[in-house]
Amino acid sequence: MIKAGIIGSTGYAGGELARLLLQRDDIEIKWYGSRSYIDQKYASIYQNMFRIVDDVCMDDNMKELAEQVDVVFTATPQGLCASLMDEDVLSKVKVIDLSADFRIKDVSVYEKWYKLTHASPQFIGEAVYGLPEINREKVKKARLIANPGCFPTCSFLSTYPLVKEGLIDPNTLIIDAKSGTSGAGRGSKVDSLYCEVNENIKAYGVASHRHTPEIEEQLSYAAGKPVTISFTPHLVPMNRGILVTAYASLTKEVSCEEVKAVYDKYYGDEYFVRVLEKDVVPQTRWVEGSNFADVNFKIDTRTNRVVMMGAIDNMVKGAAGQAIQNMNLMFGLPENTGLKQIPIFP
Amino acid sequence: MIKAGIIGSTGYAGGELARLLLQRDDIEIKWYGSRSYIDQKYASIYQNMFRIVDDVCMDDNMKELAEQVDVVFTATPQGLCASLMDEDVLSKVKVIDLSADFRIKDVSVYEKWYKLTHASPQFIGEAVYGLPEINREKVKKARLIANPGCFPTCSFLSTYPLVKEGLIDPNTLIIDAKSGTSGAGRGSKVDSLYCEVNENIKAYGVASHRHTPEIEEQLSYAAGKPVTISFTPHLVPMNRGILVTAYASLTKEVSCEEVKAVYDKYYGDEYFVRVLEKDVVPQTRWVEGSNFADVNFKIDTRTNRVVMMGAIDNMVKGAAGQAIQNMNLMFGLPENTGLKQIPIFP
Amino acid sequence: MIKAGIIGSTGYAGGELARLLLQRDDIEIKWYGSRSYIDQKYASIYQNMFRIVDDVCMDDNMKELAEQVDVVFTATPQGLCASLMDEDVLSKVKVIDLSADFRIKDVSVYEKWYKLTHASPQFIGEAVYGLPEINREKVKKARLIANPGCFPTCSFLSTYPLVKEGLIDPNTLIIDAKSGTSGAGRGSKVDSLYCEVNENIKAYGVASHRHTPEIEEQLSYAAGKPVTISFTPHLVPMNRGILVTAYASLTKEVSCEEVKAVYDKYYGDEYFVRVLEKDVVPQTRWVEGSNFADVNFKIDTRTNRVVMMGAIDNMVKGAAGQAIQNMNLMFGLPENTGLKQIPIFP
Amino acid sequence: MIKAGIIGSTGYAGGELARLLLQRDDIEIKWYGSRSYIDQKYASIYQNMFRIVDDVCMDDNMKELAEQVDVVFTATPQGLCASLMDEDVLSKVKVIDLSADFRIKDVSVYEKWYKLTHASPQFIGEAVYGLPEINREKVKKARLIANPGCFPTCSFLSTYPLVKEGLIDPNTLIIDAKSGTSGAGRGSKVDSLYCEVNENIKAYGVASHRHTPEIEEQLSYAAGKPVTISFTPHLVPMNRGILVTAYASLTKEVSCEEVKAVYDKYYGDEYFVRVLEKDVVPQTRWVEGSNFADVNFKIDTRTNRVVMMGAIDNMVKGAAGQAIQNMNLMFGLPENTGLKQIPIFP
Repeated sequence: MIKAGIIGSTGYAGGELARLLLQRDDIEIKWYGSRSYIDQKYASIYQNMFRIVDDVCMDDNMKELAEQVDVVFTATPQGLCASLMDEDVLSKVKVIDLSADFRIKDVSVYEKWYKLTHASPQFIGEAVYGLPEINREKVKKARLIANPGCFPTCSFLSTYPLVKEGLIDPNTLIIDAKSGTSGAGRGSKVDSLYCEVNENIKAYGVASHRHTPEIEEQLSYAAGKPVTISFTPHLVPMNRGILVTAYASLTKEVSCEEVKAVYDKYYGDEYFVRVLEKDVVPQTRWVEGSNFADVNFKIDTRTNRVVMMGAIDNMVKGAAGQAIQNMNLMFGLPENTGLKQIPIFP
Repeated sequence: MIKAGIIGSTGYAGGELARLLLQRDDIEIKWYGSRSYIDQKYASIYQNMFRIVDDVCMDDNMKELAEQVDVVFTATPQGLCASLMDEDVLSKVKVIDLSADFRIKDVSVYEKWYKLTHASPQFIGEAVYGLPEINREKVKKARLIANPGCFPTCSFLSTYPLVKEGLIDPNTLIIDAKSGTSGAGRGSKVDSLYCEVNENIKAYGVASHRHTPEIEEQLSYAAGKPVTISFTPHLVPMNRGILVTAYASLTKEVSCEEVKAVYDKYYGDEYFVRVLEKDVVPQTRWVEGSNFADVNFKIDTRTNRVVMMGAIDNMVKGAAGQAIQNMNLMFGLPENTGLKQIPIFP
Repeated sequence: MIKAGIIGSTGYAGGELARLLLQRDDIEIKWYGSRSYIDQKYASIYQNMFRIVDDVCMDDNMKELAEQVDVVFTATPQGLCASLMDEDVLSKVKVIDLSADFRIKDVSVYEKWYKLTHASPQFIGEAVYGLPEINREKVKKARLIANPGCFPTCSFLSTYPLVKEGLIDPNTLIIDAKSGTSGAGRGSKVDSLYCEVNENIKAYGVASHRHTPEIEEQLSYAAGKPVTISFTPHLVPMNRGILVTAYASLTKEVSCEEVKAVYDKYYGDEYFVRVLEKDVVPQTRWVEGSNFADVNFKIDTRTNRVVMMGAIDNMVKGAAGQAIQNMNLMFGLPENTGLKQIPIFP
Repeated sequence: MIKAGIIGSTGYAGGELARLLLQRDDIEIKWYGSRSYIDQKYASIYQNMFRIVDDVCMDDNMKELAEQVDVVFTATPQGLCASLMDEDVLSKVKVIDLSADFRIKDVSVYEKWYKLTHASPQFIGEAVYGLPEINREKVKKARLIANPGCFPTCSFLSTYPLVKEGLIDPNTLIIDAKSGTSGAGRGSKVDSLYCEVNENIKAYGVASHRHTPEIEEQLSYAAGKPVTISFTPHLVPMNRGILVTAYASLTKEVSCEEVKAVYDKYYGDEYFVRVLEKDVVPQTRWVEGSNFADVNFKIDTRTNRVVMMGAIDNMVKGAAGQAIQNMNLMFGLPENTGLKQIPIFP
């Protein structure tokens, strides 16, 4: 029985972690951390857990938590996880951080985009970027996982094979992403009110979204050279889901079959990445509630570009599901343990 | 390994059945019946099943199906199941009918409300109304289950204890129900188009909805006398969920605690019925994707009425989940096998 | 040119008032009051007004406002309008209060349900309940209008003719109402977040909603005796609209035609109330953006009840539109001036 | 009094035309054409028109219609308007075609993308592409207007100034567009059902959408050379609205102020195009129900690209509103007559 704790358990990602972990027999959640709802019953915050969870919310005491559990998930605002990290903690417990604190190797880039001083840069080096589809072996041995962002996960999985194989010029990459509203979190802001989001679509963080350097760093590793991209997220009136539509110039003439073969080369053995059939577009509804990433592409011979598309559930493969996928690897379990949910529809 | 077949597998309820059954290790779906999509790949209709289901859609050949499987689910338009039923079939296979064909004991009532001639009235008598919370023992021994309607399930579970105990006058019962749009099915009708349903609410079937006699029959058994109710369903712009708000006059002065005790008496040991805490209202979001029915009540001393409320996921407890709950009982399995999904939120 | 001021102009009702008034040539808005956004450009709060409104938000100075304008609309939290009212103000300016402060004649009832001490009870007597369909002549002469609540408007218009004519027993009235989310206001609360409201329906204020005594008071006048009702509002995932489904026992046997004649007697000459054709149900989408109230009914001979239904746009006939309808009457203008918008669809 | 006829009046665009025209005193709709609903009351199809329109739906008899009215709007499937056109018709009546039949000057391009044989290519030459912001003078003199597509309108208005002034390389243009579901029309298709569209986003027509050549043709005129672009529309779960996010490489280093000045040069005097303030993004909710096009841009110095954004209501500026704008010009009326609606929110 693996003992787990969640810091930030009452945010949407924290709630999703709890929901997914509670459905397993081999995990026990020992700690529902929540600064906002401390001492309140967890099931009074998430009424779906009524009669399933009896615990009350705890504080963010990482030290004490590290004594009690085998793995800590931090689903917290930027900077918090870094502020709680030290060698003593890491020597006792595996940490999977769902925030951005350890995702970017160059601390100055992190501090510039996040406008924060990093509280524990000494652990950035050892932190493993937890995208199992590329870092599987490193994840298995890690003490500290930087769980990827939702947009980077979907953007990277959609484009990685073509960047890696040099079929596209990565510096022509334009990633237009669309996200459901759960990505905005459970904080009470006018901009997140039902009447403001419903019947509307807008871009946000244009040319300035924090996930940009994260995507660029990972694509640079794949390309073997620095990559700079355009990235624009949009807010869509739906609860869950991210769709990425990415555009790039082809570096040579290729057939549809050749490009398909490249995707299959990288993802053919992956459980969670589904390369769709010809002319079938990824749609968020077909991955909702699951850890799948559906990807596909279309060659546009008129413009010599390829359109790469991907869809994930931002709460699952974009957050809690991927965190559990990493946990499975770290504990030597089959990677898809507890993550075989078939997408729910409608 | 239980072998199952689904007739009507490409409707929304059929799709939900497939989704729920596919996540179990002890069931194998051998037959995906669909008149509309015959010979097409099932996963091309429900793209969420891509790489999970390789089967193509089959016809509705009940005879052949009965040879191949242990249990048949019919999630079909009214009248079809009755037309496929005979002694030979029932001697070979258990049948769980999600349509209304076998729900109403008085065939003339069925024929009047459904405007159909019943094709096999000889099996109405033995069919068991598959609401396990009241008919558990009968379900275990049944060959033919009439799986309850979505509105009747929610209406009945919300009001049953107070009717049974005589705390309310059942002939004062007014049931105002609200349903998500999946209840309207996957047929292409202008009235079900996105732009027609979205940003709208309306009543339908006012004083004439077919689920009325089904609710009345079951409440009559509970009351021990004929019950006539008012029932009005409404269409709500959401995919899943039914909420029932029911009103009735109290037959005597009772305290909140006394009423709570009555609900607990009937549901205290039920896994799937959750009697909520005081002043917590049932909400469809807290049961979405699960087989739970959340119920609660509020006494209105000003009017001497009680307001009874219930919420279910119409696709799960209102259709596919309850069908599987019945199947579990029929095959001697724990009732909640494969049905412990925690409601998904958001 | 009528000069108007709005206190509480940045709430949803205030914004709707501004939108409707700005489309007229005979009105000039001189004052956009808003405590929350004082000194900010109004069009930066409501970007739809960009290049249409250049004003900045002002404070709530009723005294100064009364010097500058001919009519003041208060679209403010309960208690505020009462606190700003005095004889000097009323001698200078007409006031249309969209809050509940002057709706209920018995101040003790107001104070009990609203849990407030009324700051100016001396004006309750002269305030006119601004439902023009019943109080037209009084409205024309009023200095102070208590603009009806959204639920009361829809509930009353749906049921009034049958109560007035004694066709139903008003104490059997059960009003089940459904509202879009704009009714919850623009305050930032977790319960109003997109992900909390979307894909959900719930009741709220069960047996305790503040609009109950307002409905009861008006129905009591119509019935000529005290009326006590059951009233339950529900929150629906849509921006605008209220649907009322009301149930009552008939006092005698009546035909559909007779009931229709009663509705026509009261509403046949009304511009804004549309009695629909037989078997056509009111739907919120067919009144959205307009000042119409669509009503209809269905006799249920099985239960000797009648189901009365009504639909309005809560922002228009339920708030800002009705306020303008009242203003038109107070200033001797045709009642539908500036209110002939055809419902927008889809 | 201008007499108008609408062929295709029961589709969403036709309904919007009727709604907008009915609110004017200077227009009379004499003909509600609808093949699907012939002889049915128009207000039974669009219940919002109840008590406003008494007419029944007529056939598509252009000949007879031309005798009776001054202007005909065709809001019909591709190919129909072309099949009804002849010199006799055009000599008697002005025609504003909301379909694509006369938008593309090169008939072979039309026939290739639309997979139709053009029935009256002889009128393509004289047809004026009805985007008043660039073709105002031609529109005034036209007999036949090709009313622009919804995506082309929004795409063009968002990018035109920078293409025209040579600030961007038009062949680097990538237009990622998002549309509400009313754009899919009122036909009953499974793909347009509420449960299929809700809680989902997907691309469609990738690298093959018919609006591509229309955008390219207009941009080519602006650029003075052939332009080839990437264009991808997406279906968004909302009723109305189009958002365009367009990306292109800058041809030289420019400041934010310089780009703003270019937008202002072209749109500063336009009533319907609003260039937003710095860092304010276009959102569909702020133009809903209006004929406005909100545009803005963001320079991305990291990639030397500019992101151009635009939002319109696809039913208004993207269809019916623009058609009326054209009609106003053709009849010598102020361009914004009947089109000053302030966007409705929420």
